[in-house]
Amino acid sequence: MKRGLYIGRFQPFHKGHLYSLRWCSDKVDELIVAVGSSDKSFEFRNPFTAGERIEIIRENITTEIKEKRDKIILIPVPDVGVHLLWTYNMDLLVPRYNTVFTNDLFTSMLYKERGIEIIHPDLISREFLSATEVRHRIVSDKNWEELIPTSTTKLINEIDGVDRVKNLYNLTKSHATTEYHH
Amino acid sequence: MKRGLYIGRFQPFHKGHLYSLRWCSDKVDELIVAVGSSDKSFEFRNPFTAGERIEIIRENITTEIKEKRDKIILIPVPDVGVHLLWTYNMDLLVPRYNTVFTNDLFTSMLYKERGIEIIHPDLISREFLSATEVRHRIVSDKNWEELIPTSTTKLINEIDGVDRVKNLYNLTKSHATTEYHH
Amino acid sequence: MKRGLYIGRFQPFHKGHLYSLRWCSDKVDELIVAVGSSDKSFEFRNPFTAGERIEIIRENITTEIKEKRDKIILIPVPDVGVHLLWTYNMDLLVPRYNTVFTNDLFTSMLYKERGIEIIHPDLISREFLSATEVRHRIVSDKNWEELIPTSTTKLINEIDGVDRVKNLYNLTKSHATTEYHH
Amino acid sequence: MKRGLYIGRFQPFHKGHLYSLRWCSDKVDELIVAVGSSDKSFEFRNPFTAGERIEIIRENITTEIKEKRDKIILIPVPDVGVHLLWTYNMDLLVPRYNTVFTNDLFTSMLYKERGIEIIHPDLISREFLSATEVRHRIVSDKNWEELIPTSTTKLINEIDGVDRVKNLYNLTKSHATTEYHH
Amino acid sequence: MKRGLYIGRFQPFHKGHLYSLRWCSDKVDELIVAVGSSDKSFEFRNPFTAGERIEIIRENITTEIKEKRDKIILIPVPDVGVHLLWTYNMDLLVPRYNTVFTNDLFTSMLYKERGIEIIHPDLISREFLSATEVRHRIVSDKNWEELIPTSTTKLINEIDGVDRVKNLYNLTKSHATTEYHH
Amino acid sequence: MKRGLYIGRFQPFHKGHLYSLRWCSDKVDELIVAVGSSDKSFEFRNPFTAGERIEIIRENITTEIKEKRDKIILIPVPDVGVHLLWTYNMDLLVPRYNTVFTNDLFTSMLYKERGIEIIHPDLISREFLSATEVRHRIVSDKNWEELIPTSTTKLINEIDGVDRVKNLYNLTKSHATTEYHH
Repeated sequence: MKRGLYIGRFQPFHKGHLYSLRWCSDKVDELIVAVGSSDKSFEFRNPFTAGERIEIIRENITTEIKEKRDKIILIPVPDVGVHLLWTYNMDLLVPRYNTVFTNDLFTSMLYKERGIEIIHPDLISREFLSATEVRHRIVSDKNWEELIPTSTTKLINEIDGVDRVKNLYNLTKSHATTEYHH
Repeated sequence: MKRGLYIGRFQPFHKGHLYSLRWCSDKVDELIVAVGSSDKSFEFRNPFTAGERIEIIRENITTEIKEKRDKIILIPVPDVGVHLLWTYNMDLLVPRYNTVFTNDLFTSMLYKERGIEIIHPDLISREFLSATEVRHRIVSDKNWEELIPTSTTKLINEIDGVDRVKNLYNLTKSHATTEYHH
Repeated sequence: MKRGLYIGRFQPFHKGHLYSLRWCSDKVDELIVAVGSSDKSFEFRNPFTAGERIEIIRENITTEIKEKRDKIILIPVPDVGVHLLWTYNMDLLVPRYNTVFTNDLFTSMLYKERGIEIIHPDLISREFLSATEVRHRIVSDKNWEELIPTSTTKLINEIDGVDRVKNLYNLTKSHATTEYHH
Repeated sequence: MKRGLYIGRFQPFHKGHLYSLRWCSDKVDELIVAVGSSDKSFEFRNPFTAGERIEIIRENITTEIKEKRDKIILIPVPDVGVHLLWTYNMDLLVPRYNTVFTNDLFTSMLYKERGIEIIHPDLISREFLSATEVRHRIVSDKNWEELIPTSTTKLINEIDGVDRVKNLYNLTKSHATTEYHH
Repeated sequence: MKRGLYIGRFQPFHKGHLYSLRWCSDKVDELIVAVGSSDKSFEFRNPFTAGERIEIIRENITTEIKEKRDKIILIPVPDVGVHLLWTYNMDLLVPRYNTVFTNDLFTSMLYKERGIEIIHPDLISREFLSATEVRHRIVSDKNWEELIPTSTTKLINEIDGVDRVKNLYNLTKSHATTEYHH
Repeated sequence: MKRGLYIGRFQPFHKGHLYSLRWCSDKVDELIVAVGSSDKSFEFRNPFTAGERIEIIRENITTEIKEKRDKIILIPVPDVGVHLLWTYNMDLLVPRYNTVFTNDLFTSMLYKERGIEIIHPDLISREFLSATEVRHRIVSDKNWEELIPTSTTKLINEIDGVDRVKNLYNLTKSHATTEYHH
């Protein structure tokens, strides 16, 4: 059996992610989707909790690619202090896999050191289809909804996500930011 | 929608767990199965990694309760240094839930402090159907296979689990145990 | 100015502690009371949170030794992974001090290595006046109230402390104890 | 009884803090003053240890608002890796409280999620009365003493605080900054 | 070039260790000696700091096997929370190696999983030549000096090691043990 | 006996380091070389693991200053979360020392607080002989080899160090950098 590993932060899950999920899951029998930086949330780069992101991705799978539902395995994976231990810690948290799908330079670097097969998934509209773009559009009241599937919009609204992203952005600009919390 | 949370360590997943999964998933629309102590493995009380346990549980669901597959959400959840923060950390890692299924005293205690509904799932043959019993039967070459579903046996054999459990047990008895590792 | 450091866990604060506080604060201009293991709670040896313990001690000071109120400084101090760094971490969290009051062997050992003056406070009825004894009397429904000042009893009752201690004790006896929390 | 929680880093304690302490303690029976980022010191944004800050604040209370001394509870509170767990960890370290006094956006955000009452304390001369301003004036040999109460000045001088702040500032500008320490 | 890895805690370094060092260094061009549990000290099982143990081992090498001095590399290696990451963390801290010398079951288990060559070094007088035996003889005033080389004795005396070991042993027997430090 | 402590990160070891090692080891009987930030690697400021750096430094010592080999002690030392505990943690990992060699402001500051003798080692060509300069020359294909001894070049090539440094530099410029790893 061929099992692939696809890694992302999904802050938030957008149309590019959906496209990649479809693309990757076509290449394997089962696809592990690692929800990275699962220990991060409530900061501008990582506004949503791992639980919220998993809820959003599940909703998207059910609505958009239901036929692939049974082959996709969602797993939250935390960051690790020592970079080089990150892929080994990954191995402890997810089912065994033969292939890594990633376009991230650092992930590629770490897996290449270990001699594991890396596939660069096809991307669509990379120039504007990114989570960073979505967050910045939210902040500046531009059309962010067009970049993400309806299921993501629905859940973001349910949890007051727009307000949260805007508040977190404002914090990055103030001096007092998260002074005594993190 | 009613979403329940069922917590276990599944070291390993046995017939009692399977029974509970069936029982609990009948009570809710979706059931989150938290694979606890996900940061532990290769010790006698926790021989299997979170990834291995998830693989085993998935296989069991597919084989034994396929019809409930789409309503079950498997999530690894690590231990937390400060007891009282454990349920709050749980909330960050899993989708929102309304009910907790548990027979564990401490889990009940922590959730009761927060005023969240707790349901004690029905148990079968509790007197001998426990993961502890399974591990001890493995060590003493007694009939452990009768306590666990076929899918668990199959995967334990695939990863040389019997040898691992025996080795880890021997370590608990030697002076030199895990002296300079943990 | 002479400032002393008195260290304890106060699980819970009993008549011996009260006696020592009075005794030690007579020897110095100001007395820092370090509430140790401030990161521990909800375990049988450490049932109460640092916040609860501080509330209890404050209440005792106000009721019993009000005249010493202004010279006592309560500070929660967490455990530290590396033993030898514990006293140095202490120094970062509390005001400067010249003297350490302790009857604990290990604390004495660590401070002696640093050449800091140690005073062994006078003890009363050490044979039965200990927090361990209080907790065990609570568990076995013996007269625990006679060992502690009224203010402690009042606050323990307010937070359902008796039930908590009993539950935590039961957990130490069951196999399933705190399996996937700590 | 009404108990409030006032949170700050006090790097260092200035006239605005003193004003707020007076203002907040008038609104409640007891005021917990959480000394945040208690695990930080010897960096430009956090030059003073928690112990030093507590010493300074105590001195200020005694000198300036002695009448409120008995209702103020000083507690050092460390940062926490996971933002959302910070307020829950706070609850473990301090006595129970009903109200939070804060003008910090992030603190407000976190407590609002939990539905706890937030009061924005009155501020005086916010435009120049900030700890950041004090530190920058120290660095550039401008009149920093006018921004802080006499007790703060006295203690900063006692611990060679001016030199420390200047040294830490120089480090932020050099490449070699704190390379192998933190 | 053949480089071997020899792992021990050396609490303290005894004649068996010396024998093994000689034996192992004969088999390779360079021998890394990993001083395990380097983050532990001042507890009965780990009385000496990594620095002290390195000082002791260096002294032994100089005195007893000077001719092997240049091929031996001493490196302190801390414990790691997650067992399975321990060998990978080892790889980050020491020069590259081809062979592992160990008689420890758990180390063997972890390296076998990775397919790395393991050699079980020859042992002498295993029945009484162990660090545990040395510590217990120290505690009970039996002849511990005969188990360790002169250099170890000399340095243990220099740092008052006998007193330390006895004190730490007494702590393991008292209730109050290291309550609020670790 | 006079034992000195020389601290560096050696990312990578260059001609200035070699000069300092020679200079410092002339002043003492033994010289501890602490390889700082030993827990860091695979980031642009810290491309090499502690193990790789130790291998490189050993090779340099053997080739360039063989006569000093026996008096030099190489020890990896990790960063510590709380700045002020860093020097105390150092003391646990290395043999006892009387003198600290450093030109680093922060190290000087921390040791001065403890009243330990600090010597500022002689520097050569500080204006361009720095590890930062070496890394930037590698990135821009300028002559970096002239800044480092032959042994360093040899080992960097052996482990594909040039590619690694370039990749890590590219990551610092991309948005996606090490998003879900650290």
